Amino acid sequence: MPFKKAVFIVVLVLSSQLFAQNKSVVFQSDFGLKDGAVSAMKGVAMGVSADLKLYDLTHEIPAYNIWEAAYRLEQTVLYWPAGTVFVSVVDPGVGTNRKSVVVKTKTGHYIVTPDNGTLTLIASSLGIAERREINEAVNRRNGSQKSYTFHGRDVYAFTAARLASGTISFDQVGNLLSNEVVSIPYQKAVKEGNLIKGNISILDIQYGNVWTNIPAEMVQQINLKYAQNLSIRIYHKRTKVWEGIAPYCETFGAVAKGKPLVYLNSLMQLSIALNMGSFADVFHVASGSDWSISVNAVEKK
Amino acid sequence: MPFKKAVFIVVLVLSSQLFAQNKSVVFQSDFGLKDGAVSAMKGVAMGVSADLKLYDLTHEIPAYNIWEAAYRLEQTVLYWPAGTVFVSVVDPGVGTNRKSVVVKTKTGHYIVTPDNGTLTLIASSLGIAERREINEAVNRRNGSQKSYTFHGRDVYAFTAARLASGTISFDQVGNLLSNEVVSIPYQKAVKEGNLIKGNISILDIQYGNVWTNIPAEMVQQINLKYAQNLSIRIYHKRTKVWEGIAPYCETFGAVAKGKPLVYLNSLMQLSIALNMGSFADVFHVASGSDWSISVNAVEKK
Amino acid sequence: MPFKKAVFIVVLVLSSQLFAQNKSVVFQSDFGLKDGAVSAMKGVAMGVSADLKLYDLTHEIPAYNIWEAAYRLEQTVLYWPAGTVFVSVVDPGVGTNRKSVVVKTKTGHYIVTPDNGTLTLIASSLGIAERREINEAVNRRNGSQKSYTFHGRDVYAFTAARLASGTISFDQVGNLLSNEVVSIPYQKAVKEGNLIKGNISILDIQYGNVWTNIPAEMVQQINLKYAQNLSIRIYHKRTKVWEGIAPYCETFGAVAKGKPLVYLNSLMQLSIALNMGSFADVFHVASGSDWSISVNAVEKK
Repeated sequence: MPFKKAVFIVVLVLSSQLFAQNKSVVFQSDFGLKDGAVSAMKGVAMGVSADLKLYDLTHEIPAYNIWEAAYRLEQTVLYWPAGTVFVSVVDPGVGTNRKSVVVKTKTGHYIVTPDNGTLTLIASSLGIAERREINEAVNRRNGSQKSYTFHGRDVYAFTAARLASGTISFDQVGNLLSNEVVSIPYQKAVKEGNLIKGNISILDIQYGNVWTNIPAEMVQQINLKYAQNLSIRIYHKRTKVWEGIAPYCETFGAVAKGKPLVYLNSLMQLSIALNMGSFADVFHVASGSDWSISVNAVEKK
Repeated sequence: MPFKKAVFIVVLVLSSQLFAQNKSVVFQSDFGLKDGAVSAMKGVAMGVSADLKLYDLTHEIPAYNIWEAAYRLEQTVLYWPAGTVFVSVVDPGVGTNRKSVVVKTKTGHYIVTPDNGTLTLIASSLGIAERREINEAVNRRNGSQKSYTFHGRDVYAFTAARLASGTISFDQVGNLLSNEVVSIPYQKAVKEGNLIKGNISILDIQYGNVWTNIPAEMVQQINLKYAQNLSIRIYHKRTKVWEGIAPYCETFGAVAKGKPLVYLNSLMQLSIALNMGSFADVFHVASGSDWSISVNAVEKK
Repeated sequence: MPFKKAVFIVVLVLSSQLFAQNKSVVFQSDFGLKDGAVSAMKGVAMGVSADLKLYDLTHEIPAYNIWEAAYRLEQTVLYWPAGTVFVSVVDPGVGTNRKSVVVKTKTGHYIVTPDNGTLTLIASSLGIAERREINEAVNRRNGSQKSYTFHGRDVYAFTAARLASGTISFDQVGNLLSNEVVSIPYQKAVKEGNLIKGNISILDIQYGNVWTNIPAEMVQQINLKYAQNLSIRIYHKRTKVWEGIAPYCETFGAVAKGKPLVYLNSLMQLSIALNMGSFADVFHVASGSDWSISVNAVEKK
């Protein structure tokens, strides 16, 4: 019946449109934007399916900095709709036996990446629903088998595009692995009596402010009031790098110029700054998995 | 009648497609591209509607530089089709009582922004057709009400996406305000007798050339000829920063290396440069609302 | 018959969709991302057709560096699907008599550019199927004729958008020219007896490594083994800038810190580096059409 056929086609158009509307790939790397590497990845994705929508997280991850790649994913993934496919290529171990994987988070986001620690924070916050190893026998750009492979382009972008476009199902990525992603050890935010410990996750680099993973809720548990002093210790690995006292402030101007303060940053996490100065520069504090902090309230007298 | 229904669906597909084709959002900010802020804004927009097309103006506005944000909008908006929605987030006053608005220009472009001066130049050149205050009771990302709000993501990107996608009409942004946007005072280009006054709008930063808002037409009114000398005075607020003589030139090579010249830049506006040097660096000249210039032709003898 | 009409419309929807799915434009320039120039180009393209998909190659080509523009195209074009339209605007000769052209490569890619050397490498690798001069009488943004023209925006982006969207056919770009693009002379990779000569195409700028255009296959022809020494001479124009001996290595760690080595880079081309150092900085070596290299194996004793 031709009429049914027409309706069928209409439905097909409608449904393919609906399906197409989730076909987003978001790219992250340490490639920078000065050469053609990012564009080559996007070209490969477009070659898989012209229906895809391609976006960037950032390509300015410092070279080989897996921790920062993990942090940027953590900062961003949840703001995208479920079904979005992320590609994260910070891959100092290319050519070694690190696994190439796709994970599906419990929130329904996909991340295509070398499993080298990039998933540390997402696994902890969103949770991993499934992890699969990319079967490069099928999920690899045609013609890229011989000689050199640029994995970001030939495997990760290609597989992400196939998954996002529905060319393959998640099952077809490759074999199911355990949900245990490779994790970089770091100090989780914990309250031990009156002491709060945490990690220095990242610097607010433009201003030299120090951002921790200690949430506002934990700060509330020690009944901290504005203007109350905190005793602070900052460690790199086991070495104490800085120790001092600073008040908990609502605004930077609550302390004199050049003085330290504690505040909640834009992610509602405990942070440390110098008013009109760079805490990180002045006190040689950096960020990453091996930087930690402990704070406790100094009782008001 | 099933047939009518099929046609209806077809028409729906067609019209939704036509409608979708104007669904562009262009983002500007001072966030830079090193972290996840821009990507989070885009993720929120995609969560509103996967039909949207997301673009960037620039995210390299110097931190808190409202004037430059205003200038980049002025430089760009009119080249986009009417109906395009711009988001501009340079917001030093976040948390103060600056209003969050959407304006519709007389050319049919929309701009979502804190009303803090960002609209100064667009209001003057394109004109404001309507200005509405964003009603954050409805135009705010779900779940962002509690504790901290990243306005660029939770209010501006979200509202822009709703507007661009047709989820809300312009009326539904919020209450109508007067058309009087917050304007930063600056020296408009004026001819007073033989004297032309203007603002130093921006530096051509790569070369250190000084760009003014004085249009070619005004230069023609004083019958300036190539090689004719101009007497120039540059002011920061009320202080004279530089004073000198330079010829009006068609090419930089018309003066000796290191010598100043006056020329029309790529926007057909009066500009000042050093041949093979940086006028801005050498003479400590910057740009912005508080920089002004006056020139007059030196009569040929 | 209304039914046929419905089917016709359906087919129209389907085919216009299929057609729309190749409508990609990829932009490259030396404009940087700090101002509104790139966004203005994209706005003009969107004004031509909202169906287009707009991407970036890079906008960080060093100012006026035609060679590097040529290299980035060479590095990228082939990874995009046939039918993709590239716009490359590195145009030191704007206002001179350089031609504005669109070429179709033998692989079915289109490049819109001033014909000033940008096509040197693509012409050699992919081959030119057709070259046409842009007829600016028709292929120019409305209203841009008077006074100043920003060619990247008013001619190149506009023409690329018209071509990519099917508004014009390739024939309608303008008159057919010969296939002989303007080429920058450079040392092609050649084997002359036991000597291999080539060009220093680019620096791996982040690390200061020197990349040549000498392919792995040519290295194989001289039966080079890992650890075998090569005698190397580097020239700028006719002047020898560096001469030395370095071993052919699989990994950087095969030589002591600060020592030179020869390796195959990620494009499988002969490259030179210092282990943990910048060969380019230490020995004042740069890249471009006027930099060349010659190497020969030093016989093992």
